[in-house]
This record gives sequence, C-alpha cells and structure tokens, in this order.
Amino acid sequence: MDIQNFSSSLVDTLRQRRQRLAARIDFPAILWSGSSSPRNYPANVYRFRASSHFLYFAGLPLSNAAIRLEAGKLTLFMDDPAPSSALWHGEMPKREEIAQAIGADAAFAIAELESYLEGAATIAVQDAATWTQQSQLLNRWVLPQNQLQGIDLELAKAIVELRLTHDAGALAELRKAAAVTVEAHKAGMAATVNAKIEAQVRGAMEKVIIAHNMTTSYNSIVTVHGEVLHNEQYHHSLQPDDLLLADVGAETEMGWAADVTRTWPVTGKFSSTQRDIYDVVLAAHDACIAKIRPGVEYGEIHLLACTVIAEGLVDLGILQGQPEDLVERDVHSLFFPHGIGHLVGLDVHDMEDLGDLAGYEQGRKRSDRFGLSYLRLNRPLRAGMLVTIEPGFYQVPAILNNSELRSRYQYTVNWERLSEFADVRGIRIEDDVLVTEQGSEVLTVALPTDASAVEELVSG
Amino acid sequence: MDIQNFSSSLVDTLRQRRQRLAARIDFPAILWSGSSSPRNYPANVYRFRASSHFLYFAGLPLSNAAIRLEAGKLTLFMDDPAPSSALWHGEMPKREEIAQAIGADAAFAIAELESYLEGAATIAVQDAATWTQQSQLLNRWVLPQNQLQGIDLELAKAIVELRLTHDAGALAELRKAAAVTVEAHKAGMAATVNAKIEAQVRGAMEKVIIAHNMTTSYNSIVTVHGEVLHNEQYHHSLQPDDLLLADVGAETEMGWAADVTRTWPVTGKFSSTQRDIYDVVLAAHDACIAKIRPGVEYGEIHLLACTVIAEGLVDLGILQGQPEDLVERDVHSLFFPHGIGHLVGLDVHDMEDLGDLAGYEQGRKRSDRFGLSYLRLNRPLRAGMLVTIEPGFYQVPAILNNSELRSRYQYTVNWERLSEFADVRGIRIEDDVLVTEQGSEVLTVALPTDASAVEELVSG
Ligand SMILES: [Mn+2]
Ligand SMILES: [Mn+2]
Repeated sequence: MDIQNFSSSLVDTLRQRRQRLAARIDFPAILWSGSSSPRNYPANVYRFRASSHFLYFAGLPLSNAAIRLEAGKLTLFMDDPAPSSALWHGEMPKREEIAQAIGADAAFAIAELESYLEGAATIAVQDAATWTQQSQLLNRWVLPQNQLQGIDLELAKAIVELRLTHDAGALAELRKAAAVTVEAHKAGMAATVNAKIEAQVRGAMEKVIIAHNMTTSYNSIVTVHGEVLHNEQYHHSLQPDDLLLADVGAETEMGWAADVTRTWPVTGKFSSTQRDIYDVVLAAHDACIAKIRPGVEYGEIHLLACTVIAEGLVDLGILQGQPEDLVERDVHSLFFPHGIGHLVGLDVHDMEDLGDLAGYEQGRKRSDRFGLSYLRLNRPLRAGMLVTIEPGFYQVPAILNNSELRSRYQYTVNWERLSEFADVRGIRIEDDVLVTEQGSEVLTVALPTDASAVEELVSG
Repeated sequence: MDIQNFSSSLVDTLRQRRQRLAARIDFPAILWSGSSSPRNYPANVYRFRASSHFLYFAGLPLSNAAIRLEAGKLTLFMDDPAPSSALWHGEMPKREEIAQAIGADAAFAIAELESYLEGAATIAVQDAATWTQQSQLLNRWVLPQNQLQGIDLELAKAIVELRLTHDAGALAELRKAAAVTVEAHKAGMAATVNAKIEAQVRGAMEKVIIAHNMTTSYNSIVTVHGEVLHNEQYHHSLQPDDLLLADVGAETEMGWAADVTRTWPVTGKFSSTQRDIYDVVLAAHDACIAKIRPGVEYGEIHLLACTVIAEGLVDLGILQGQPEDLVERDVHSLFFPHGIGHLVGLDVHDMEDLGDLAGYEQGRKRSDRFGLSYLRLNRPLRAGMLVTIEPGFYQVPAILNNSELRSRYQYTVNWERLSEFADVRGIRIEDDVLVTEQGSEVLTVALPTDASAVEELVSG
C-alpha cells in the first residue's frame, strides 16, 4: 500500500461518513480491521482483507488496527512496524503518516485501546484472532455468528443506513472495479476459442484483475456447468456445444467490489436453442433495469424478471399457461431458482455479515416460498444504491428430477419440448446497476449483453 | 474436485504412508481437514486449503472431514452433502465414493467421530472453527499456537519422519508443481518488456498457474524492490534500470508446492554492475547444488553459499579480506541476511506449522548469530528430501544504514566501491532441488539461470 497514492479527497470522504454516523448514534463505536487468516501454517496466510465496516470509515486496508468513532472524531489505534520488520516488509508507513492520510484526530498504539472502550459498540470481524481480542477487551461475546444486541445492533443499523447508498468516494472506487471487471470478461471471451479447459478461461480473466493490482471480490465461477450455481470447479474440458458461464468480479485495493456474469458459446456461435433461451434471459435483464428508479420495490423487480422469463418460456412452448399465473404458482423457479440480485458495495453481497439487516427493510422477513426464499434484497430502492440484476435460466438436475416438483408441474411444463433445449444447462446475465435520481446507470454497460455482440467478442 | 481423475495408485500411496506411520506410533491419530476461513462475511470465504497433515494421509482436499489412522487402517469421517446443496454446489462425491477413492477401511458420518476419540493424538489445524471443535471433542486445548506435548508431540515427530522424504506419489505432484512454476516464470519474463507496473508481470505469471487449475503456494513476490524480502506490493512502475525479482510458486490441486525465484532486468539487458552481482549469486547457487547429496549437512551448504558470495564480493572490490574470515565475522550477512533455503513439500516451508521440529535435527536450536538465525533447515540431507537453494544479494537500507553495523564493518566493506552498485537492490535465484542417492536433481532445471539465457527470455 502506497499511501502517497491516495487523493486528499479521502480525508473529506471519511470525515463526512463519520459525521453522518454521529448524527445517528450517541455512543462511541470501535471498529477493528482484523488480521490475516492462516492458510497451511501461521506465516503462510491468505491474502489479507480488512473488515468492510473498518474500511468504510478508515479508508485504508490496514491490518491489526482499530478506529474509534465518536461525535465525528476519529481515533486511530495501531502500532508502528517493529524495526526488525523493515528487513522483511520494507519501510511501512508509520502510524502518524496513516493518521494524516485518513484525517484522524488522534492516533495511539494499539495497547492504548483498553482505555477507550467504555460504552463502545462494535461489530465482529471475521478472523478468530481478532474476535477473540474483541471479546476479551469488551468483556462480552463478540462473535461473527452471534445475534447483534443492544448498542451493537444500534450501531449496525446506523452503518447499514450509511452504506446502503454510496457517496462520491465509494462510487469512484465502484466504477474502477466495474471497469476492470468489464476488461476481465472481454479477455475471457477472447481466450475461450483457444482454451481447452475452464481453468484457462479463468486464468485469462483473473490475469486482468491481478494486472490492475486488484483481487477477485469472490471466488470466480467459470464453468460449462452453469446449472451448478456456485460451481467452483475449473477442470472441465470445453466441448463444442457448451455454454461457458463466467461470474467474475474485481475488488479494488480499498475493497470495493464488482459482480458481473456473462454466458457465451465456447465456439463463438450460439445454437438456435441456446440463443432462444439467452434472449429470454436478456429480455428479463433489460426489463428489470428499465424499471429501476428510486421508490420502486426491489421485490417487484424480482417478480418482473420471473414474469418475463415465464412469458418467454411460454412463447418457446416450454411452459403452458398465463405468465402471471405461472409466477404465482412458482413455476418459473424450476428454471430461475434464485433472487434477481443483491446489494453491492464493499462486499459483493453488501453487509451480508449482518444477516438480512441490510437486505431487508425493517419488519420484513425472508419468504419461505420456493421462488422467493433466496431473494437477498427486499426494500424500496433509493438513489445511490448499487444492485445487481442477474436473471438466469438453469436446468438443475436436483430440481428437474425432483419427483414432487415434476408431478406438481406435470401439465405446466412441456417436458418433451424442454428436452429439445438440452444444450442449455445454465445461462446468467448479471450487471451492476446504480440507482440514480433519474432512474439507473449500468456501471458495467461497456460489456455487451446482446447475443450477437457477445458472439463477436468470442470469435474475435 | 473430480475424483474420477485420480489414479488408482493413490490408494497404494496412502496405504504405504499409513503403514509407515503405524510402524512409528502405537496409538491412534485423528487428523482434521479443516474448513473454509471467512473473508469479509461468512459465505465469502478464502479459497479453501485443507490441512497438510490431512492431505498427506487422506490424499484429497476434502473440507469438514477427519480421518482416523490406527495400525495401518484408515477410517474416514465426513457427511454426505445435504440434498439442498446440490442446487448450489452440484452433485458432490458421496462419502462412500471418497472412501473408495482413498482406500478407506471404513467411513462414517462426522457425528460418529465422538466414539472414536479415545487415546487419539492429533495436530491443530489452522482455522478457528476446526480447532475449537478439536479442543471440544478431545477435551484438551488443541490450538495452533500451543506447544505440542505427549502423544501429540510423538505423532508430530512420526509425521515429520515420513514427510521429510518424498515417496513416488508425492514426487509426481511436486514435479507437476515445478513444471507449471517454470512456465509461469517464463511467461513473467516474456511479459516484462511491455509491462508498466509490477502487477502486470504478476498477472502474466499467475495466469499460467490458474490456467493449470493450480493455486499459488504462497503470496507471490513480484517486485522491483527485491531488497524487501517479503514484499507483497505490486504497484511500483518498472523503470529502465530496474531488476525485477519474482518469487512465485504453484501448488497442485492436491496441495503440493513449488518455490522458485528469478531476477531479471526489465529491459532485457543487465547493466554490467547488475550482471557482476548476478553472477556472484549464481556462482553460490551452482556451488550449493553441486554439493548436495545424502549425508551432507544443510548448514554446510548454507556456509558454502556465504563463502562463495564473500569471495565474489571480494573479487568485485566490495569486500576486503579473506572470504572465510569474512564469513566467520558474518560480513556476508550484510548482503545475504537469510538462510540458503528450506524444505518443500505440501507446504512451501514444509511442516513449518510444527515450528522447527521438521527443519532442525533433534537437539539442535536456531543460532542467534546475525547470519544464521534465519536458517530454516539444519539437518543432514537424506535422499528424497526436497529443498530450496536460494542465495541472494540485497542492499537493505535497514541493514546498510544501521550505524552499529556500519561501524563494525567500516574497514571490511569498501563503501565507495559499493555505491557503484546502486542499481542492484535485490537479486535472488531459487530452485527446488531433490536430494537423490547419486547427488541431486533440480526439479526446476528447465528454467534457465544463466544471465544471457534469462536476457533472451525477457527480450523474446
Ligand atoms: Mn451476484
Ligand atoms: Mn523459498
């Protein structure tokens, strides 16, 4: 991390964030950055990721640090690197330099934190070494899996209100993540025709992200088995009639994410059945984006996607009935079993560490309806929110071979007609869409969605 | 993971390993695989790495599993995937299929493990969720940072004896890791002339590793500031008189590592001062490898590197005196402050989770001498060991500007002459060398070390 690289606007951004927090809570908050998680031995660690709540208010991916926020003031707690660390890690920025870069009002060694804990709320970080420390210092259980209570819950709610909509500083980072993600997908498309296995396409895509000094914001999905929703296998060979589904996103050095999916034919040419279904998914994608504006319920957008998909499948003869009826009976969920999307920010599923506190409007709970239980966002949209729109069509054996579902939808699905679409195992089209005062802006618009344009990028 | 891909020889390899273990201990051992470590929220995890001890005896990178080893028998404990997981993760191999693939004598659900704990030794894994379980189940503290005691210590010593030398199954994997690592370095060299920042070279290298469905075995070092030994920054721009130091290694799907460093001029042409120092480091590298054979003390090889480096620096007029005297006085450590290498296996610093139990012959302790304290391996070599040989030359400001060291070596170093070598901040040449009955075999020999050959790979 080269702190000279950060613009002076960071100081202003952070000051505004903590003032907005101060307007919502009247107690101090202490946020820990977390520390590295060991991989196979203590010195061989996973590449460190600072806690998102810490990043939001501290701006920099520091490790083994904490900040105290109270009444708009920021106090930084971190140790200067030990003199011996210079040999292994070089000259690292000192506490005072960091304090200046982030506009801290005071800065102390981490041991001083003990004297600043009284009445402070916090949120658990993810690594065990730090949450053990959090619990010991605050003398109460602070564990990621604990239900939030008392002032910790109040703090979480206040942070959710802030992080739900993005300020200019956040948007600048989110745009960077989106731009690099677009390039990564283009590189993946261009690399496919000559690739023999999925891993080679993944390599071409992640190369772009690494080359921009970013990381992936989640474990990439690059697969010819798109019907496996969270497929993290990359060893399958590419066959001529395969579609490749790539769900790959970049994360900036400061932790801001993108989340994009495209599906393309490995030969550069969709079959007619693949293209038919692709166009149904794309119609849902476009309709949802067209509907996005402040005030619209995200749940309505989800239902719109379901309806457009049902309509398309009726037109193709795969479903039988009135689209609205089909959606009411959850028939679309046979092929589109997940939600239309989620919040994006410092986390690719933003603030998911807080359960549904961010995703669900207060008082709302997850539905247990087959088609709705996976919906991660259920709120009216606000200007400044960044959400994904990611409709899909999948032939999931675990669903389509389920005898209960098959008999429930025996006459609704034309199973024989469906069998003609066997070369469509999984298609998803996902973009990151900013809710604006006027409607929406697709941050990832530079990556084509049109089937012919995608074919061209693959064929080169 | 596609278990069909594994050769039937895995079963034999694993059987032999547990029989060798049974010959050394007369109590049962239970080894946990570990589970995923959360990154920024529980469902966003670092890419899972199974515990190396588990991998050694279980062969496959299972998560949330355990094995019991007793008298040459293997019992597998893992749950079948929940039916609902098929939607998200696809059809995963069932317990019985895994049991067959690894030649288990019995297989049970993980809950059954409770009944098989009596008198069993174990070793702590790295993730908190699992070591908490280990402690609860065994009713004693099993923590990675704890000193090993009793049967746990006996188990660790027995495992060290096995893992110190590699069987044919291990070697096949280690050769795969080495081969991909060689390709990654060649790609890095070829990408440098057109790269503007370090991250672009890193991207070109890791692309190769990802494309082979492997991971990096440690966080890559790709830097024009090679004098920072564990530099994990990649944002620096490449300047015409820079050397680029790349310490990058692949790890196979089954967890076996490679660890290779090369240093090359970003223009494709070493300056004469850079080449002079490069050739000194290379002379040390070659002399050490030539000396490797069973029975030779690794510490002697370290001292040989020190002597060759001292000689070379005397020849260049940077040091003054007799090389042996200089080494005795630790003068070489001003420029070569780390050890000549370490064990490589399932861990890039093999078995470092056990402290110095693997690296140091029983009864030996780390030296507190400036030049020796970082030596990670201090044993007589045995056929079947894989070690790195990685001499280097660095101008570390924290060392060379240290006033105590400067005055101690005031007349030994020709500081004025040294200043002519300002364009050499850090050079390291590292290969993975197998100790054979006849002497040694460099697994990474396909990657040139000769300065002219390196220049050619960079210039293309
Ligand atoms: Mn998404
Ligand atoms: Mn090494």
